Amino acid sequence: MVHLQYRMEQDLIGKKEIPAEAYYGIHTARAAENFQVSGQRVHPELIKAMAVVKQAAAETNLAIGLLEPRVGSAIFQAAAEIAEGKLADQFIVDALQGGAGTSTNMNVNEVIANRAIEILGGTRGDYTLVHPVNHVNMSQSTNDVYPTALRIAAIRLLVHLSESCAALQGALQTKEAEFAGILKVGRTEMQDAVPITLGQEFSAWAEAISRDRWRLYKVEERLRQVNLGGTAVGTGLNAERKYIYSVIERLRALTGLGLARNENMVDGTQNADVFVEVSGLVKACAASLAKISADLRLLSSGPRAGLGEIRLPDLQAGSSIMPGKVNPVIPEMVTQVAYQAMAQDLAITLAVQGGQLELNAFLPLVAANLLPAMESLGNSMRIMADHCIRGIEAVPEKCGAHLHNSVGIITVILPHVGYDVASELAKKALKTGRPVREVILEAGLFTGEELDQLLRPEEVTRPGIAGKRKKK
Amino acid sequence: MVHLQYRMEQDLIGKKEIPAEAYYGIHTARAAENFQVSGQRVHPELIKAMAVVKQAAAETNLAIGLLEPRVGSAIFQAAAEIAEGKLADQFIVDALQGGAGTSTNMNVNEVIANRAIEILGGTRGDYTLVHPVNHVNMSQSTNDVYPTALRIAAIRLLVHLSESCAALQGALQTKEAEFAGILKVGRTEMQDAVPITLGQEFSAWAEAISRDRWRLYKVEERLRQVNLGGTAVGTGLNAERKYIYSVIERLRALTGLGLARNENMVDGTQNADVFVEVSGLVKACAASLAKISADLRLLSSGPRAGLGEIRLPDLQAGSSIMPGKVNPVIPEMVTQVAYQAMAQDLAITLAVQGGQLELNAFLPLVAANLLPAMESLGNSMRIMADHCIRGIEAVPEKCGAHLHNSVGIITVILPHVGYDVASELAKKALKTGRPVREVILEAGLFTGEELDQLLRPEEVTRPGIAGKRKKK
Amino acid sequence: MVHLQYRMEQDLIGKKEIPAEAYYGIHTARAAENFQVSGQRVHPELIKAMAVVKQAAAETNLAIGLLEPRVGSAIFQAAAEIAEGKLADQFIVDALQGGAGTSTNMNVNEVIANRAIEILGGTRGDYTLVHPVNHVNMSQSTNDVYPTALRIAAIRLLVHLSESCAALQGALQTKEAEFAGILKVGRTEMQDAVPITLGQEFSAWAEAISRDRWRLYKVEERLRQVNLGGTAVGTGLNAERKYIYSVIERLRALTGLGLARNENMVDGTQNADVFVEVSGLVKACAASLAKISADLRLLSSGPRAGLGEIRLPDLQAGSSIMPGKVNPVIPEMVTQVAYQAMAQDLAITLAVQGGQLELNAFLPLVAANLLPAMESLGNSMRIMADHCIRGIEAVPEKCGAHLHNSVGIITVILPHVGYDVASELAKKALKTGRPVREVILEAGLFTGEELDQLLRPEEVTRPGIAGKRKKK
Amino acid sequence: MVHLQYRMEQDLIGKKEIPAEAYYGIHTARAAENFQVSGQRVHPELIKAMAVVKQAAAETNLAIGLLEPRVGSAIFQAAAEIAEGKLADQFIVDALQGGAGTSTNMNVNEVIANRAIEILGGTRGDYTLVHPVNHVNMSQSTNDVYPTALRIAAIRLLVHLSESCAALQGALQTKEAEFAGILKVGRTEMQDAVPITLGQEFSAWAEAISRDRWRLYKVEERLRQVNLGGTAVGTGLNAERKYIYSVIERLRALTGLGLARNENMVDGTQNADVFVEVSGLVKACAASLAKISADLRLLSSGPRAGLGEIRLPDLQAGSSIMPGKVNPVIPEMVTQVAYQAMAQDLAITLAVQGGQLELNAFLPLVAANLLPAMESLGNSMRIMADHCIRGIEAVPEKCGAHLHNSVGIITVILPHVGYDVASELAKKALKTGRPVREVILEAGLFTGEELDQLLRPEEVTRPGIAGKRKKK
Repeated sequence: MVHLQYRMEQDLIGKKEIPAEAYYGIHTARAAENFQVSGQRVHPELIKAMAVVKQAAAETNLAIGLLEPRVGSAIFQAAAEIAEGKLADQFIVDALQGGAGTSTNMNVNEVIANRAIEILGGTRGDYTLVHPVNHVNMSQSTNDVYPTALRIAAIRLLVHLSESCAALQGALQTKEAEFAGILKVGRTEMQDAVPITLGQEFSAWAEAISRDRWRLYKVEERLRQVNLGGTAVGTGLNAERKYIYSVIERLRALTGLGLARNENMVDGTQNADVFVEVSGLVKACAASLAKISADLRLLSSGPRAGLGEIRLPDLQAGSSIMPGKVNPVIPEMVTQVAYQAMAQDLAITLAVQGGQLELNAFLPLVAANLLPAMESLGNSMRIMADHCIRGIEAVPEKCGAHLHNSVGIITVILPHVGYDVASELAKKALKTGRPVREVILEAGLFTGEELDQLLRPEEVTRPGIAGKRKKK
Repeated sequence: MVHLQYRMEQDLIGKKEIPAEAYYGIHTARAAENFQVSGQRVHPELIKAMAVVKQAAAETNLAIGLLEPRVGSAIFQAAAEIAEGKLADQFIVDALQGGAGTSTNMNVNEVIANRAIEILGGTRGDYTLVHPVNHVNMSQSTNDVYPTALRIAAIRLLVHLSESCAALQGALQTKEAEFAGILKVGRTEMQDAVPITLGQEFSAWAEAISRDRWRLYKVEERLRQVNLGGTAVGTGLNAERKYIYSVIERLRALTGLGLARNENMVDGTQNADVFVEVSGLVKACAASLAKISADLRLLSSGPRAGLGEIRLPDLQAGSSIMPGKVNPVIPEMVTQVAYQAMAQDLAITLAVQGGQLELNAFLPLVAANLLPAMESLGNSMRIMADHCIRGIEAVPEKCGAHLHNSVGIITVILPHVGYDVASELAKKALKTGRPVREVILEAGLFTGEELDQLLRPEEVTRPGIAGKRKKK
Repeated sequence: MVHLQYRMEQDLIGKKEIPAEAYYGIHTARAAENFQVSGQRVHPELIKAMAVVKQAAAETNLAIGLLEPRVGSAIFQAAAEIAEGKLADQFIVDALQGGAGTSTNMNVNEVIANRAIEILGGTRGDYTLVHPVNHVNMSQSTNDVYPTALRIAAIRLLVHLSESCAALQGALQTKEAEFAGILKVGRTEMQDAVPITLGQEFSAWAEAISRDRWRLYKVEERLRQVNLGGTAVGTGLNAERKYIYSVIERLRALTGLGLARNENMVDGTQNADVFVEVSGLVKACAASLAKISADLRLLSSGPRAGLGEIRLPDLQAGSSIMPGKVNPVIPEMVTQVAYQAMAQDLAITLAVQGGQLELNAFLPLVAANLLPAMESLGNSMRIMADHCIRGIEAVPEKCGAHLHNSVGIITVILPHVGYDVASELAKKALKTGRPVREVILEAGLFTGEELDQLLRPEEVTRPGIAGKRKKK
Repeated sequence: MVHLQYRMEQDLIGKKEIPAEAYYGIHTARAAENFQVSGQRVHPELIKAMAVVKQAAAETNLAIGLLEPRVGSAIFQAAAEIAEGKLADQFIVDALQGGAGTSTNMNVNEVIANRAIEILGGTRGDYTLVHPVNHVNMSQSTNDVYPTALRIAAIRLLVHLSESCAALQGALQTKEAEFAGILKVGRTEMQDAVPITLGQEFSAWAEAISRDRWRLYKVEERLRQVNLGGTAVGTGLNAERKYIYSVIERLRALTGLGLARNENMVDGTQNADVFVEVSGLVKACAASLAKISADLRLLSSGPRAGLGEIRLPDLQAGSSIMPGKVNPVIPEMVTQVAYQAMAQDLAITLAVQGGQLELNAFLPLVAANLLPAMESLGNSMRIMADHCIRGIEAVPEKCGAHLHNSVGIITVILPHVGYDVASELAKKALKTGRPVREVILEAGLFTGEELDQLLRPEEVTRPGIAGKRKKK
């Protein structure tokens, strides 16, 4: 980008030209240069959460008289704007930055300072009015602000994730009800097994997602303990006691989240295991989604030469070379998002275990993986619910044909005819290649009507011996 | 191994010689041959848990009249012996077996059958007395027995893991108290930062482990929902209703665990996400242990040319070529166990996401990774507590020298002398290479006594401005 | 285990009773106690490789006059026995040991020393005759012996792995030829696509395995650079120059491997990246095996309600509850071994990246994952070749039915009838549910014979427009 | 974004408004809507590589008379522009798309078509002039175009990566030479060991990177086998033979890369193991970088209370709360990039093993991880070379003090004084806390000058007994 005008800023290392219109300053500019590495930007939810922490700090500093009202109010207002997502293009430091988040903190400090200066009628870069470190960062350290903000951002995306689980669960349950009467063959180890309903298959998927939803909902409370006020290593050195005890209260009010001060802020500053915990649950959700997506691709395989027991909605043309081919693109997308989340979990684990002594320098890597994982996974579940699950149609004739053609029925009649007769019928069917139903009827053991009675979904897909219940 | 005598057994595939003294039978022998792959045996806790499930099933089948008393009692007794760890050498199938655990189930069935036959005075292999499938496996399927047993085994090892956390936490807290008065420099990003006590460092580690303990304790309840009674696909086909509702009760009584029937057994049969959840927490514990172990290696580095702030107990000679060298072998071992657990978590995730339709065929892989991970990690924490943490000694003179030599003190006096003076002193110390304490004293800003007052642990390692408190 | 008699040994830490019959000594006994953690033993190939290094060192020390002939010969003989696999039960230290392999080195030193003492007619424990450190470990350090032995063990297992690839490739190619004439529908994204032969599917699998074979064969040369002679940190301090330049030559002669001295032994002592490289290739092989195994399970799914295009050999009964059910247990086993190898690759990566300064303390973790991964994967491929692939039968009638029923044929006739007519036929088939072949014939565009001509495997499964070639 | 004008397009699913100024069309628009999931765009190198494949196809179709000259030339020109990076903002489909890359292929087809239409003087959307499928995608399938393009993009980024290795290796070697004379203590398992030079430490790092460079250079040839011409499943159905044999030649000419046709295109279409292989090597590089970065952080720790043997260049202020604190931000960044690459390797492995039958639907996930991993890792090495390694200064006085204070020297004098005297001196030094050098001199065994002679770098850091050489 070409900038027409520049202002000059200075730090310990020297002077540097900054685009005149930039809200960020020299620390941001240096970091943006130093870390031209991944091209990935810091996640917007983290920026917003940093800003809300700055709001709380400004309010507190103002209340205990450390900031003069004019400056404090301008900082608060500027931070509030950023917390709403404004000036998002000013956060230019690479997500994979060194320095334990210091550069993101300075980026936020500088943008707030310059926006506050602007609010006060000054010129960007004139830090005598509002100083990024002395005023905006007052009573804070990156080491307490950054982990606190990361937890807030994670909580917010957990909500998104949990709600997406609810949406997907709902869609699956609707189909569970819709397909409750469609009997089909169950498959274990990809081999024909005993009967099940299509509805039950959807219910098992829904159940898995409901577990994810509950877990993700519950784990939120683990993220609530923040180390704000701990300053550099968690001891709170050089922060006023009044500040420490009041800032969390304000943060709680501003966010509406049940945040609390970690009683052991030395721990809170250096240990990031909670992110492994949260990511582990995100990964459990990903594993379930990968399983469900694979099942959907299996059941909808065909349309002619596959299982073809369900039909996924058509979303886009699948092939230029094969007319009419439609692919399971949504489950494929979900699988990939799930695989990506598993990989992101590894990055998070590596970052967390790599912490050293009083700080974990790799929190930016945690942020760069956890927040996108939660966001993408949440998005993928909504898309799956809306654009795939809701439109799924059963193919009852295929379900029925597979069932009546398979040895699964043999297991149903086994208690009625005994193991030897059942095995004989199974063998005969396999040898002749004829549908099992036909072979059974031919043997004269049951009439078609009796067999239909025996094979009613409510008979064969609930605990007990099919055909025994009705006698009660 | 050479066997002198054989008996002949037969299955659908044909006849096969089985060592006459073997309690296992033909299904086991075939599986042992088919899966000569990893040399890793099935974890003993899984075998014990399978046996206790067999006890519960036998009791129930007996109670509802499906098994005659003589046979049922013999099965119960045989299963009880195995549940206590007897006949452990009879479980010879490879841990990485195909078949969703069927071979382990058959191995248990056969050993129980032959032991029961022996109890009844029969000859091993005479399955007319007690049949592995018809009697021992009655009302069951691998698909409900195996996941149920895996959950029981996991719960039992969770207890081991959680207790080991408690032991380690206790050892760390003892040291936290012992080292509460030893002031030292804190380090962030491996650079000298502000003061902290050695006790606080131990407290942060203890806190992390206490979180692990709590998590591992809490997650146990997620494992309690079992699918026993669901038979092949979770529908419970061909199991008596009376059996299904009673068997869990007996299992609960036999194990003393709060087990409950999964309300959706179709879900319970095919979904294994709970193991990803549990493993994710095990991994969080591993991440904390890797971090703590690395810190211990850092702080004990030296003895002369490293940080050398603590001394680990000597456990074994470290080097043949360098006299007197002693290495941090316990933290190194713990790190490796932790890394292994992270890898095992990946294997578990892969297995779980790979489930297809009504069953997860890869539960044996889950078992082969989750149970050893929990066991090793538990063992490593106990060893760490007993053979490393308890014997750690502080090296206060090193702690003191590092602190007084570092710019960390500058931050303490900053509120008293202002940023400019502080920076001047810091620069002077860095330029001359002299200890910071000396430079401060020389400047005549504080007497040695005043500086000592200011630098008392209770001043500089708790929230607030050091030196301000005493005035109150 | 209860030992009846003990001898007393002593080290820097104190005295300790050692079972009188043990070949290992006090260092081993301490390590075995210190690391009671995983129950996993050190891989036998590593022990054998350690022993062959000891042979080479003894020969060299003897040749340059550092060891007297009687002692040197006894050490050589004892080491040779262990290199052949004898005394395997004497290597009792846990695989997940701390100390960078020192305990395994000491275990080997002690067993060799006591066996040599025995050869010389002495009493075990009388180290005045042969001393584990002064004699057996002469001119060596764990830091050069252990990485050298690990490379030798890895090379030997690479050969196993590469030969197993060859066996599997051969089995697949046999089937490729056998099934060359069986036309079937190809599937992309699990949806019916254009025709392919069953032989081509086997050829694609064979090709993947042949690539693995070639990679694994080629990477062996990367393992040949050893740091033997580098002693503690790779500088070779206190090893005689004559020793350093001669020991590798002898090692080469003893092993028959093209080993060479790493020119930069400081690098060779601290860097273990080659194991990540090798493991990465093992993982590539694992990924291919997972893919092939999944395909086999898909194609053999059924037998009635699945794709059922191939039939896997029956190896063991699959279910007690469903008569005649046979499961794809070998592919399931292979999948699990492959997943395990992926996890082991992660453990290796973690260990390698965790090296610090002049040494990698986590090589035991590398050994504990790399060697089993190579062994299991090799075993699994041989089992797959012998017990699964060789016995696979095609089900041509299913292959044919799926093809003629699918829109895949439409793509074949498209160049002959144009896009519009083709689409019309496809729509009609989908609407009526009738086989595509029938619909085409009914439209009178081709006779059955013409269609058969067009659909000959050699027409539709090679580049070009089917039906155009014969005209040439 | 608000668009003022729209054009109407149509596909099988229905009509849809497309922004009038858009070069992309309806297929792209649908995909962009369907996959609003990660916000990550398709990597620009993949788009460029797709475009160059389109150039080759257009040229070939033109040459064999399938495309009329006017249309073919316009397509070629449009594709050439995109291959140079133009119109980059028109590629709007999410990187984590389902459909095996079809949407990216269609996006490229549509943008080329509309740009070609523009070149021919037509109106965007008027596909009678140039049709995205019939003309731009002629003789192609996503299934051959996409894997081919992915390989080209990977080769190009491999070059970047390999050159970055060279830059880093060069920077390390410069320092190796510069620090060749600085003697210091070596450390194994974080404990003081024998002497080494700082130059040797840099040489070991350089050696590791040179191995990476060589590996990454060599692996390029594995990527050269492309399946272009294989169409849907690799059989080449419906592509002219003339096209198939000529298109690769043109692609080779256009790219300047040694591409070749995969002899088994069925294999090339479905198997993606080569990406696991390449990623495994990228990961080996990452592991080395993580190790080197950690070492740099260790050696530069301090400045006062750490090892402090080297000083990293200051790039940005490290802390607002601790004046003058400068952090090792570049090594921290590199560590994170390395960890990210390890995670990306997992995503790639998951994607590759998940391929099914004739196609791998998860290649977009491979692309979304492999290309960024190579790019970021390459960038990080350049930054490391230029902004960290080049500016590193040794702190010889610290190196010397650590060495002379440590028991490392004892090992040097051991061959001269014997084990007993050496141990005695070591004990005395440890007991009194005095520098080892002092203790040795006091014992009168060497003069200071003799000791200096003995401890010359060339004496103690090369193979052999220090002090013996000069006598020769």
